[in-house]
Amino acid sequence: MVVWDQDGFQGRRHEFTAECPSVLDLGFETVRSLKVLSGAWVGFEHAGFQGQQYVLEQGEYPSWDAWSGNTAYPSERLTSFRPVACANHRDSRLTIFEQENFLGKKGELSDDYPSLQAMGWEGNEVGSFRVHSGAWVCSQFPGYRGYQYVLECDHHSGDYKHFREWGSHAQTFQVQSIRRIQQ
Amino acid sequence: MVVWDQDGFQGRRHEFTAECPSVLDLGFETVRSLKVLSGAWVGFEHAGFQGQQYVLEQGEYPSWDAWSGNTAYPSERLTSFRPVACANHRDSRLTIFEQENFLGKKGELSDDYPSLQAMGWEGNEVGSFRVHSGAWVCSQFPGYRGYQYVLECDHHSGDYKHFREWGSHAQTFQVQSIRRIQQ
Repeated sequence: MVVWDQDGFQGRRHEFTAECPSVLDLGFETVRSLKVLSGAWVGFEHAGFQGQQYVLEQGEYPSWDAWSGNTAYPSERLTSFRPVACANHRDSRLTIFEQENFLGKKGELSDDYPSLQAMGWEGNEVGSFRVHSGAWVCSQFPGYRGYQYVLECDHHSGDYKHFREWGSHAQTFQVQSIRRIQQ
Repeated sequence: MVVWDQDGFQGRRHEFTAECPSVLDLGFETVRSLKVLSGAWVGFEHAGFQGQQYVLEQGEYPSWDAWSGNTAYPSERLTSFRPVACANHRDSRLTIFEQENFLGKKGELSDDYPSLQAMGWEGNEVGSFRVHSGAWVCSQFPGYRGYQYVLECDHHSGDYKHFREWGSHAQTFQVQSIRRIQQ
């Protein structure tokens, strides 16, 4: 992926092929536009992969509003980046649980769900997740809107027991849409 | 679907089972929260199904930031609503064209694509669309972010020749993600 410190792919430019814990170390004050040329990435608001998370799939992001789908608390800057390891789309598997620590009712997912309630899930929360395969992004509101959290087979052994483990920036179990990340 | 004139499902309440060209006619000044109990709907910024479009699938939208994924030009109000007729997910089919009037290279879609470029589409634009079956939502940026436009088999005979036909509010052919709407 390639990042620029000004809108519209202008200004200082830097290309990554592996994770970057802080663009500040490259002499950037912030990243204001970017292009993902291959693979899938996750961008973070703060250095060290902290703060709000944004899934970045292949394409062009000419200004901050292109990645920051969360209107209540938009992030105008991205400071750290890392690649996401996706499964083949047809092999992605995830279990969602009603309560934390993998308790309560559960649902098995292997597709994209813009509305969990439309697939029969009750309520607007998910208590915990177990990723069997692939990388997923879950979102606070239907249609992949609001806060988003990346869930990966290769992190936490794929186990996310409590909201503290999938995103410290939002203190909520609210999750209403989930999809696979596209390589 | 049910709408309220205050955040958090508070205040005046009204339930729709069919299209509503203007909530102003119901004595509402605006809609600030809503729940979709069944089906899929599209909400519009202005009366008469005009202005920005928001796909509303089953679930809870406690405040305007839940539907308004477009951070550059968020819409804090919704004024008109109508239901969307979806196909069975497996039967949805759409053709995208490089140029307006169904010219240039084309691509056939029958799945969800958070990144058109990742499926091999060149550039960040689509010139025209032909919906063979179902209802779709296309978005300006990857990951279903930015301006969104609803494309339906049952409107315009499924033919969208130019951006003027899919959304008058944004003067752009920029489309980087497309997915089926979920019933």
